[in-house]
Amino acid sequence: MPSFSKCVQEMRTSEIRDLMSLATRPDIISFAGGMPNNDLFPVKEIDEIYNNLSDREKKIGFQYGPTPGYPPLIESVKEYLRTKNLPVDSNELIITAGSLQAINIVAKLFIDPGDTVITENPCFIGGTSAFKSYQANIESVPLDADGIIMDQLKRKFDDKSKNPRLVYLSPYFHNPAGIIYSEKRKMEVLHFLAGKDCVLIEDDPYNELYFDEKSKQLTVPMKTIQPEPVPICYIGSFSKILGPGMRLGWLLASPEIISKAQLAKQSIDACSSTFTQVLANQFLAQGKLKSYVENLRIIYARRMKIMNDCLKANMPPEVKWVEPKGGFYIWVELPENIDSLQIMKESAAKGAIFVIGKTFDPHGVRNNCFRLAFSHTPEDKIEKGVKIVSEAVKAKLK
Amino acid sequence: MPSFSKCVQEMRTSEIRDLMSLATRPDIISFAGGMPNNDLFPVKEIDEIYNNLSDREKKIGFQYGPTPGYPPLIESVKEYLRTKNLPVDSNELIITAGSLQAINIVAKLFIDPGDTVITENPCFIGGTSAFKSYQANIESVPLDADGIIMDQLKRKFDDKSKNPRLVYLSPYFHNPAGIIYSEKRKMEVLHFLAGKDCVLIEDDPYNELYFDEKSKQLTVPMKTIQPEPVPICYIGSFSKILGPGMRLGWLLASPEIISKAQLAKQSIDACSSTFTQVLANQFLAQGKLKSYVENLRIIYARRMKIMNDCLKANMPPEVKWVEPKGGFYIWVELPENIDSLQIMKESAAKGAIFVIGKTFDPHGVRNNCFRLAFSHTPEDKIEKGVKIVSEAVKAKLK
Repeated sequence: MPSFSKCVQEMRTSEIRDLMSLATRPDIISFAGGMPNNDLFPVKEIDEIYNNLSDREKKIGFQYGPTPGYPPLIESVKEYLRTKNLPVDSNELIITAGSLQAINIVAKLFIDPGDTVITENPCFIGGTSAFKSYQANIESVPLDADGIIMDQLKRKFDDKSKNPRLVYLSPYFHNPAGIIYSEKRKMEVLHFLAGKDCVLIEDDPYNELYFDEKSKQLTVPMKTIQPEPVPICYIGSFSKILGPGMRLGWLLASPEIISKAQLAKQSIDACSSTFTQVLANQFLAQGKLKSYVENLRIIYARRMKIMNDCLKANMPPEVKWVEPKGGFYIWVELPENIDSLQIMKESAAKGAIFVIGKTFDPHGVRNNCFRLAFSHTPEDKIEKGVKIVSEAVKAKLK
Repeated sequence: MPSFSKCVQEMRTSEIRDLMSLATRPDIISFAGGMPNNDLFPVKEIDEIYNNLSDREKKIGFQYGPTPGYPPLIESVKEYLRTKNLPVDSNELIITAGSLQAINIVAKLFIDPGDTVITENPCFIGGTSAFKSYQANIESVPLDADGIIMDQLKRKFDDKSKNPRLVYLSPYFHNPAGIIYSEKRKMEVLHFLAGKDCVLIEDDPYNELYFDEKSKQLTVPMKTIQPEPVPICYIGSFSKILGPGMRLGWLLASPEIISKAQLAKQSIDACSSTFTQVLANQFLAQGKLKSYVENLRIIYARRMKIMNDCLKANMPPEVKWVEPKGGFYIWVELPENIDSLQIMKESAAKGAIFVIGKTFDPHGVRNNCFRLAFSHTPEDKIEKGVKIVSEAVKAKLK
């Protein structure tokens, strides 16, 4: 057999996979999976939608669709994004297989082997693996509570030989960092990138999951600012507002970029599932999204509060985290010298798991931190689980 | 904005797209789309399946699934392939977004820019675009009625500097050539490739669509021969036996290849739609496939016969084609000096369209041929459409 291609030779199994197998054991309290709980999906709503589809619509669902997406869904998503003041009329939209495929396509469009991508650190693991699969040189920049640290971002542009082509940010309820960018930081990012020869990827899958009205005001995408100081690829997803199993997301970008994205998608999978696109379209068009996410916000806010209160009550003072204003995650930072893998092992032995920090470090090094997801864990188990994790931390800090 | 990556710069809009927009006009008889007719989909069967799913199964459908696929579907597909004597126990299987994603992943695994892929000529356009998207050097080999022409295949291995890494074949009811490989030709291919440092992609989406029992015997995959003389990536699809809108296919290959394919898929879309996987699993597990495809075979065979008879009655003797033993297509060859685009224009003006030959030439040149799909056209329109096409040919040959 011939050797694998260069990009494949660099691919490594992520450590998240072994964890996920533990996560399905009923005796384990899992804060590992970055996913909604199965009990939260809008099964009834989709039942109703499916059974009211016309025969014609059902047949369309079985057929190939246009590469950019099922036209009524494109219109419904545009209408939805219009309510967020996103510039859907001067841009084009393509439906993708989740936000990950959108990231992958943008990476394909702009990355030749060795090209530099700037990511946050920590970073969404799907983003990291998409960039690596095109042999990108990843340069990462740490976050503080308000977003990417500007000084360090600026320094990445100093080395002219590196010439970053993409900057990948998840400004809203960050996975895994749990933070949301301040208005000021977003402006600083845009001001700094203005006129630079790069593309900004604004990855926004958690946009709807703010916990109060004040936090909602922080969710205004950078993409709404027109004219764009730098070309922005705005990415969204149905995974957190309907279900990841639909495998539907979108990319909103300039017509030039979307036209190339269509060609790329033609060579990847021709089109996303028309069957799930027909359902997702009705979910939006019938206005079911609104009441569904209103309920999600209440549930996730409650779970976050239980987790946050329990961390406050149980973690030693050296342990830091930012209370999330939305989303799925609390990112726990330990003193520099502590290895979260040790804590993970201790904690798993006692019955609670999470994802260790280096999983989210694009360079796979920094490990004095870990991610707790509250999205997936029933309320009555959060406290018990957090206590187990806290005990493991305390034992290590003694 | 930075320039697009090298692979994207080479991407061109395929001419098939403009045709497809014509194909939706009700006054046009279309032999263009390589797809089932909407009226043939198993809507009732899937209705029944959906409404009998347990709440638990439905929720699974909304959730992320494992990257290799929904485990019960993997088992059902394996069981199905076992009935075809495919070596499912010594190989592994991954569920993909249609067969195109499987081809794309194999290309990703083995192609660095400039590496050589051998394809047939004509070739499935999705295969061509997947290979080109990794900047492969495509070398194509013509077909005769029994398969790839061996002399010309062998010559492609003479130039040691080219060193083909992949050989991509669609041996069964070829798209667009309509032929099926003879037993002898398959053996010649395997004998020649034995021990060569390359991988054979055996793309088999039309396997079930044979028109009689004698033709069925020709559908035995090369992958069934053990031990494999050359590593074979065997690819199948639900697109022709359930519906392309499900976006489900599979790749059966050695554990080493599948393990890398999983890593690649993790960076592409994480998993295929669990929602459609749950449905496809029941379609197989409840044995609904068998009776459904039995009916499809009868319908497609009838459509093919109408088209073939009508071609025989109307085409001038210089025009050649092979009567298909299964599948969707008749590939019509004209004298060398005739340009099928001219015929297409004339025919479209009179109300019948098809896909011109060079669309399927990986080098975009050879155009004295065209593809007629009978899969998508109601019986009562085939004769009228073929007459229009034949008139256009006759006018040109005069």
